[in-house]
Amino acid sequence: MAMTRPGIERLSHVVSGRQFDREMLESIFARASALETVRDHRLDGRIMAALFYEPSTRTRLSFESAMLRLGGSVIGTEAARQFSSAVKGETLEDTVRVIDGYADVIVLRHDEAGAAERAAAVSRVPVINAGDGPGEHPTQALLDVYTIHMELGRIDGLRVALCGDMGQARTTRSLALMLSLYDNLHITFVMPETCEPSADVIDRLRERGVSFDIRHALDQAIEDIDVVYLPRVQVERYADPAERNRLEGRFRLTPELMTRVPSEAIIMTPLPRRDEIDVAVDADPRAAYFRQARNGVAIRMALLDMLLL
Amino acid sequence: MAMTRPGIERLSHVVSGRQFDREMLESIFARASALETVRDHRLDGRIMAALFYEPSTRTRLSFESAMLRLGGSVIGTEAARQFSSAVKGETLEDTVRVIDGYADVIVLRHDEAGAAERAAAVSRVPVINAGDGPGEHPTQALLDVYTIHMELGRIDGLRVALCGDMGQARTTRSLALMLSLYDNLHITFVMPETCEPSADVIDRLRERGVSFDIRHALDQAIEDIDVVYLPRVQVERYADPAERNRLEGRFRLTPELMTRVPSEAIIMTPLPRRDEIDVAVDADPRAAYFRQARNGVAIRMALLDMLLL
Amino acid sequence: MAMTRPGIERLSHVVSGRQFDREMLESIFARASALETVRDHRLDGRIMAALFYEPSTRTRLSFESAMLRLGGSVIGTEAARQFSSAVKGETLEDTVRVIDGYADVIVLRHDEAGAAERAAAVSRVPVINAGDGPGEHPTQALLDVYTIHMELGRIDGLRVALCGDMGQARTTRSLALMLSLYDNLHITFVMPETCEPSADVIDRLRERGVSFDIRHALDQAIEDIDVVYLPRVQVERYADPAERNRLEGRFRLTPELMTRVPSEAIIMTPLPRRDEIDVAVDADPRAAYFRQARNGVAIRMALLDMLLL
Repeated sequence: MAMTRPGIERLSHVVSGRQFDREMLESIFARASALETVRDHRLDGRIMAALFYEPSTRTRLSFESAMLRLGGSVIGTEAARQFSSAVKGETLEDTVRVIDGYADVIVLRHDEAGAAERAAAVSRVPVINAGDGPGEHPTQALLDVYTIHMELGRIDGLRVALCGDMGQARTTRSLALMLSLYDNLHITFVMPETCEPSADVIDRLRERGVSFDIRHALDQAIEDIDVVYLPRVQVERYADPAERNRLEGRFRLTPELMTRVPSEAIIMTPLPRRDEIDVAVDADPRAAYFRQARNGVAIRMALLDMLLL
Repeated sequence: MAMTRPGIERLSHVVSGRQFDREMLESIFARASALETVRDHRLDGRIMAALFYEPSTRTRLSFESAMLRLGGSVIGTEAARQFSSAVKGETLEDTVRVIDGYADVIVLRHDEAGAAERAAAVSRVPVINAGDGPGEHPTQALLDVYTIHMELGRIDGLRVALCGDMGQARTTRSLALMLSLYDNLHITFVMPETCEPSADVIDRLRERGVSFDIRHALDQAIEDIDVVYLPRVQVERYADPAERNRLEGRFRLTPELMTRVPSEAIIMTPLPRRDEIDVAVDADPRAAYFRQARNGVAIRMALLDMLLL
Repeated sequence: MAMTRPGIERLSHVVSGRQFDREMLESIFARASALETVRDHRLDGRIMAALFYEPSTRTRLSFESAMLRLGGSVIGTEAARQFSSAVKGETLEDTVRVIDGYADVIVLRHDEAGAAERAAAVSRVPVINAGDGPGEHPTQALLDVYTIHMELGRIDGLRVALCGDMGQARTTRSLALMLSLYDNLHITFVMPETCEPSADVIDRLRERGVSFDIRHALDQAIEDIDVVYLPRVQVERYADPAERNRLEGRFRLTPELMTRVPSEAIIMTPLPRRDEIDVAVDADPRAAYFRQARNGVAIRMALLDMLLL
């Protein structure tokens, strides 16, 4: 399969959602779509190191599956802290300089914001940020936007409801920023009265001419909508049990509510879910979240392919 | 190597030893035997997910070896509980629906009976039960019966001593049920006076015309025998130390006892062993237990091959 | 690539640095050098089991990378203790006799001296010692000597400073013993006054005619030198804080000290480091330690290739 590779020259590491422009996203999505069913040996002989300072089985297995489907191999650890256990204070930089001698690409999960950037600064091989604490998780944002693109065929002009509270700061913030690359979007933030979108997101949306409003319950945001993005509202963060109960009901998607969701809309969630989406919704064709999880493999195949081929 | 594939149309998941009939077992054993020394790429591009909710290194490595020898690849985790750690209560079903997007077959180890069946009910790819708590461990039963078949050339008409107490409920129960598919067997249960075979096993043996008796010490069951199956009697479950000592002596296979075992008989154990089989027995050609462990790889190769090819 | 394989007939297990003679080392180094950039399928279908009774991520990933680069596959566990958890006291020997049915070579990390030798005694497949507690870590010594060979083009006649205290007993002892196979060496031990080289090392050096002296601070050993081997002095083992501070300063390599190191000399450390080598030294071309870490992959490729091909 011959593929044009626009933008490849700019992709040496994947550390932040901010590094992508719209052209780059389209290039990645085209690659992901072309690779979705590919099982070949294009990355034969290449090794991916999954360097996880905290376990994240879902993300790790998704990356491993992507690498294996392109014919590459995987080494890794979910206990990367152990690198520094023998001697308190081995730096991430030292660890990366060892691992870049073992592998052709490093997928890094870390609990400190900025870790991926520090790793990329010293690594001789490409680094992919698989989540750096309160920082970024760019491959999650990519697979989210890719899912909208694949499900609805376009992103310009869509109406997107982004649910969440302070617990989803990273996820919804990254997604909102990446969506702002598209035109004529309207974003509805659905969050408790005690939350608000972060200042940098609001600035960015204004700068890019993205209209938005804020609602405080799910049922106010599901009728005139194309995408409902519904991570769990972490109600256990609220001290008052009465408040918790009130909130839980307001951010829970039920089959009843689904009757009001447009027939062409889609429901997304980064998973895991607890009860913010009733399992009775799963059978609805608009429930896109398991397809969304599978899209994570395609997006990661595209990134590995662009970084390594 | 061209192989006939009888029964393949019935094998979509492996969740229970009860799903196999004799014809199916023979088909699996023929496949296992044909694959034993195979190292090829027939499963090239296929991915097995080892989804272990509790560690079981022996079983996991055996499955991984099987998949790799057929040219497939492996992803996995021994900490599958971590899937639900971010949010208490992610269901097994949700996890399986994510993993079936990453892999072509799921090998599941879980601590709850019925977990494999629940996983199979929602999975888009084949599920293999690698042990579900007090439930079943069908690949162990398959490799046990396969070992008898390979060592002695037949199963009909054999005299089999099944040792064990309540600690081995799952192992000996599954094996007894699978053996009942064969003809003219005689089973001798060897167990403390305080134990007895479970009612469903006795019913099944009677229904299938398998004769059996019960003995209370190993030395009463080794002379007129073809197979001695000897998992460790978990004497630490007995509160009284005098009782423990008495039991330990009665279920321990020594070189002296081996002089009374027929020269064509075989000794089996699912391993690990502690002292129920004296290490001095290991050099005896009748000690089949390490060959039995190796047969686990061949059986799992056969199952993966039948499910995926 | 056709390669002569001198010595291959003697290499069936790698358990001790003492099993190598000079001719054997040269054969391994030639193989390592030839394989360094190889990414092929010569070990296609072969499986390496990484059987780690204690985690050692660096060593494990280095072995895995080596195996994968030669086209082999890997199974493994960092929790090999779990093999014996179901039943207290499963022996290492039993575990090895199971694993040798799953894999074509076993890489063993254990916390007891002599474990590798015990494993090799029962295994039907080659065993490589990846560190057995206070015993040996022969592949570390091999990669250290290989690094000197690659960096400086020779080993005969070199002046080598071996730093360390009781904490590095294993590392420096193994390295000193292996270096003693070469001619006209001079070794300078750099250690606190309270330490001395072990008696067997001194005996061996005298027997082989290797001259040596002992210094108590790094700055006394860096001017007339070809190699500075600088594991961290584990100052936290010293109770007295004043003593600790005094020692720390004496075994710390700074850019200032580097001005006195000969321009052709190299700095090595087994890593991890804390502050015994200032990060400002990293950019110096004489800082060989990250190249040394990469050499670990080449040496392990050579060993796997010689054991399995």
